[in-house]
Amino acid sequence: MKNAFYVQSGGVTSVINASACGVIEMARSHPERIGKVYAAEDGLFGLLREDLFDTSREDPLQIAALRYTPGGAFGSSRYTLPRPEIAPAVWQRVAAVLRAYDIGYVFINGGNGSMDACLLLNRLGEVAGWPVLAVGVPKTIDNDLAGTDCSPGFGSAAKYLATSIREVGLDVRAMAETTKVFILEVMGRHTGWLTMACGLAAESPDDAPHLLLLPEVPFDEARFLARVKETTARVGYCVVAVSEGLRTAEGGFYAEQEKSETYGFEQLGGVGPRIAELVRRKLGLKCHCAVADYLQRAARHIASRTDVEQAYAVGRAAVGLALSGQGGVMPGIVRVSDEPYVWRIDAIPLDGVAEIEKHPPQGFIREDGFGISEAARRYLAPLIVGEDYPPFAANGLPQFAQLAYHRVVKQLPPFEGAASA
Amino acid sequence: MKNAFYVQSGGVTSVINASACGVIEMARSHPERIGKVYAAEDGLFGLLREDLFDTSREDPLQIAALRYTPGGAFGSSRYTLPRPEIAPAVWQRVAAVLRAYDIGYVFINGGNGSMDACLLLNRLGEVAGWPVLAVGVPKTIDNDLAGTDCSPGFGSAAKYLATSIREVGLDVRAMAETTKVFILEVMGRHTGWLTMACGLAAESPDDAPHLLLLPEVPFDEARFLARVKETTARVGYCVVAVSEGLRTAEGGFYAEQEKSETYGFEQLGGVGPRIAELVRRKLGLKCHCAVADYLQRAARHIASRTDVEQAYAVGRAAVGLALSGQGGVMPGIVRVSDEPYVWRIDAIPLDGVAEIEKHPPQGFIREDGFGISEAARRYLAPLIVGEDYPPFAANGLPQFAQLAYHRVVKQLPPFEGAASA
Repeated sequence: MKNAFYVQSGGVTSVINASACGVIEMARSHPERIGKVYAAEDGLFGLLREDLFDTSREDPLQIAALRYTPGGAFGSSRYTLPRPEIAPAVWQRVAAVLRAYDIGYVFINGGNGSMDACLLLNRLGEVAGWPVLAVGVPKTIDNDLAGTDCSPGFGSAAKYLATSIREVGLDVRAMAETTKVFILEVMGRHTGWLTMACGLAAESPDDAPHLLLLPEVPFDEARFLARVKETTARVGYCVVAVSEGLRTAEGGFYAEQEKSETYGFEQLGGVGPRIAELVRRKLGLKCHCAVADYLQRAARHIASRTDVEQAYAVGRAAVGLALSGQGGVMPGIVRVSDEPYVWRIDAIPLDGVAEIEKHPPQGFIREDGFGISEAARRYLAPLIVGEDYPPFAANGLPQFAQLAYHRVVKQLPPFEGAASA
Repeated sequence: MKNAFYVQSGGVTSVINASACGVIEMARSHPERIGKVYAAEDGLFGLLREDLFDTSREDPLQIAALRYTPGGAFGSSRYTLPRPEIAPAVWQRVAAVLRAYDIGYVFINGGNGSMDACLLLNRLGEVAGWPVLAVGVPKTIDNDLAGTDCSPGFGSAAKYLATSIREVGLDVRAMAETTKVFILEVMGRHTGWLTMACGLAAESPDDAPHLLLLPEVPFDEARFLARVKETTARVGYCVVAVSEGLRTAEGGFYAEQEKSETYGFEQLGGVGPRIAELVRRKLGLKCHCAVADYLQRAARHIASRTDVEQAYAVGRAAVGLALSGQGGVMPGIVRVSDEPYVWRIDAIPLDGVAEIEKHPPQGFIREDGFGISEAARRYLAPLIVGEDYPPFAANGLPQFAQLAYHRVVKQLPPFEGAASA
């Protein structure tokens, strides 16, 4: 009988708490094997600082409510653990904290960087003398995690984006007498998965969005402007989704290039406002721009039911893997078929996953570079299927989990390296 | 027996088509009095250009689907009719078009400016010899229309904003180890109603949003920055909703002031990115910013059921008023009680409405200027109550009305003044 330790790591999603719910509920259903689940505050910082919540004292109804609560209930951060050979003191501290709480199972709910930390934690016995089974729980809206067909968090952000751009397309169509172009800036600094998901909203060539600007396709201003002009002439208006990670032919970020080369000083706003300004300046068209930023990864109210189910399932499966003695793995989603969409969960060794960025295959981009192919559509479509609305109270607002947050009383002296970690 | 004419005018909302649905369904239920309903394309432009759709040939199921379809199904524009004494030819044209289609009832679905046009159209008999009954149908997300307790369109944008800021608040709370401040830019160039609605999400002092920046309160950088600093120290993070209409102590728009005085050249982005930059520069805090722009007025997926019901009801009521011989009026929403929320519809003369901007009363702003009072909460709360999800198809995307758009064959020669109108 050992206790378990759960960490939310990296940027949060609208369904990461569904994974937390899966981990905690599954652990609670095995009281003969797992004692308490401790959750770290603010990601891996909590591990070093001994900032832990005892989830065993939380009301089961509130744990169940995590399934529909966005954000990261226990706090997250982008901090990852340094290599043991570089920072042995950090790993001694990690072992000391996990030993103090008699932790036998560690669950890291995160993306690429977090899976690397998970792999290291799984070697904690060799490194610092306190063996644990460390299992990853995949998560990222960016969908760039290897070893899994998709990443929990992505489907819901994708559904928010595809729904929003379909709705806003109808608005812009109505206002096309004046507003001709609409730009939506989408997250995904390194891969175009989320921007591609916007493309699902277009079921025929004249539907919004008309153009996608993907980080995988070097941005060519002249070609883009010609397509905007052609689209507004043909359709009456033009809706564009642009990735924050859009790059120039030289390989730099478009937003940063504009900053240094065109203006030579710090610019406000990101790539969306810049593209809007380009359209105004070069084509003289009235242009609106929205920047969804965190809204797209927090929008639990329009989560994908498929995504919620997968987020919950990988949480449960992670505990199952640990109970079966497997560490250094994560539950990965395996696609069995596109239509009907069938998926299962397999144990995926983290060696082949950590620090690898999964890019969309070349065949997912339409030949002209401004849209998605049928293959991309087949891949993306099932991930946004189904609705899973959170409960709304009589006051018209969504009601989310209200945890009690029982902090443990610290047993160890403060760790010097923790504050600056 | 006369035909009817329906116009969508000004910026569209996520529920203006629910009003269209109300007008058309009510007209169809009185075949003994009303023949066809013609809809103008692109607002009042359609009237001058004789660009009309014959809605009588549309499938009743598609008309019913307008109730949950965002955007403006027939197209809108900000064009309003010039005064008859300035442009008599325009009014001769208006009369000629309405005569050609034997129009006896005109319904203008719009905001302040559109109600002025409606009042003029109601005098078409005196002005140009073709009398019609012109009735307004109130609409605006800005909620600044006089003569009605609230404006259809506002409640749904308000619900989207309050829901989104509650969700994103949980995200920022989770990431507070790094991201300390989040800014949401909200529409409403002249009044703070929409930014105030964000305040509904905060049910206790430490809930997001922590600060509202309203156009009614001159922006004081130093006071604002002190509050951000104090909030991040107390709560750990700070969520701010800022109105695009935020003004300086001198009365100019904050965004424009920054442009000319600080930088002296055209700046990208609006007030949100500027406030974010201010926080970064002056406080050194990591800050994220979202600009909801059209998303907030198109987000039919998170419409307020109360708002949808009111939008539909004012559409029906407008036809009822016309059938009872009343013109130069609009159906206004009258609040009977806050709790339980009871409302009814009265006929409101447009003389007291057109071109008047309704501002929030001073008592709606919290004493410190950064939030809403209990009185504002009592007023706003009922308007976001209830959900009214559009149907989502098996592919996970919302399905909206698919009109056939039967254009009339033009009977009149082109109007010279129409293109430039």
